[in-house]
Amino acid sequence: MRRGNLFILSAPSGAGKSSLIKALLEQHGQDGSLAVSVSHTTRQTRPGEENGVHYHFVAVEEFKALIAKEAFFEWAEVFGNFYGTSRLAVEEQLAKGIDVFLDIDWQGARQVREMMPDAIGIFILPPSRQELERRLIGRGQDSSDTIAHRMSEAVSEMSHYDEYQYLLVNDDFDDTLDKLRAVVLSARQRLASQQQAHSALLDALLAVK
Amino acid sequence: MRRGNLFILSAPSGAGKSSLIKALLEQHGQDGSLAVSVSHTTRQTRPGEENGVHYHFVAVEEFKALIAKEAFFEWAEVFGNFYGTSRLAVEEQLAKGIDVFLDIDWQGARQVREMMPDAIGIFILPPSRQELERRLIGRGQDSSDTIAHRMSEAVSEMSHYDEYQYLLVNDDFDDTLDKLRAVVLSARQRLASQQQAHSALLDALLAVK
Repeated sequence: MRRGNLFILSAPSGAGKSSLIKALLEQHGQDGSLAVSVSHTTRQTRPGEENGVHYHFVAVEEFKALIAKEAFFEWAEVFGNFYGTSRLAVEEQLAKGIDVFLDIDWQGARQVREMMPDAIGIFILPPSRQELERRLIGRGQDSSDTIAHRMSEAVSEMSHYDEYQYLLVNDDFDDTLDKLRAVVLSARQRLASQQQAHSALLDALLAVK
Repeated sequence: MRRGNLFILSAPSGAGKSSLIKALLEQHGQDGSLAVSVSHTTRQTRPGEENGVHYHFVAVEEFKALIAKEAFFEWAEVFGNFYGTSRLAVEEQLAKGIDVFLDIDWQGARQVREMMPDAIGIFILPPSRQELERRLIGRGQDSSDTIAHRMSEAVSEMSHYDEYQYLLVNDDFDDTLDKLRAVVLSARQRLASQQQAHSALLDALLAVK
């Protein structure tokens, strides 16, 4: 059986990453061949969030114990809360032939790449500077300082786009979704994956009569 | 502007390669972004064949002059006839941003790879030994020697499948066409291609305000 592929998806806020992952899973993940890794976090559950679906919500002590056990592919502390990607959970899915998406930033991506050099990195960009600004300004209820901070965070994230193998410019949602799906589908046709998936066929075809 | 990608498509007879290329061009080549390289040959034109469409039909002297000028990516002599892929024509299309398909065997593929290491190799396999035999037997009007020879040629070609980056098992035509399209579409999303296609956007997004 073929091993699943590990995809790292990064983007600045406002590029449409979450919507793309959601749509990809809804439209092409019905056969169970695709999954998004559910992160662990120590932050408070927000209204509408479900444990095990949006995050695995754990206590700080538990999180630190998992760090000590090297249970994470990557982890980070953001505004006093811990976030991490469980290595075991991802490995289990890959072993079952499931393609796994990691929705992480460039720093997490670097950590994952060190442990999993075969991970396929995809970076998503907004279609223009104006559109990015428009999305970051949102409903116009935030201070200009807040918006400037968001913009500088976005530029900082985007400055790492060239550490990824694929670059998608999200100028049209359906079109970008189609491209994202193509990256996933083509990765499954790579020689090594196909050798695993079709070893019996290859033996039969190459047998000299 | 982005440079086109060069794809090498190889397969044993009976794997469905020609039908796949034809369908890919019909369904997804309407925007002029995709082309199949038209080979040069010295063999006689067959009924229904058009010069410049199926082949560039040239005289032996002309073909030999082109070899001397190193005008070919790859060439071969088969049953006394010459066949070759014009380097200039392919280079012109790539420079225009057109993705070019080369429909060649493993030996031609090796020659091309030496000159164009970025070429993306795709190998197509039939879905089973039985199906391959069925297709090679055809209408049952050939001698068992002829069929055995075809089978041994097919096995010989297939033995080189692992020199290609992608492996497509043609078990369902539409499904395989979808996978082939995904390989082409995903190649266009690769970092280097996208940097060429979106250099102005990247400058604008990364400019610090």
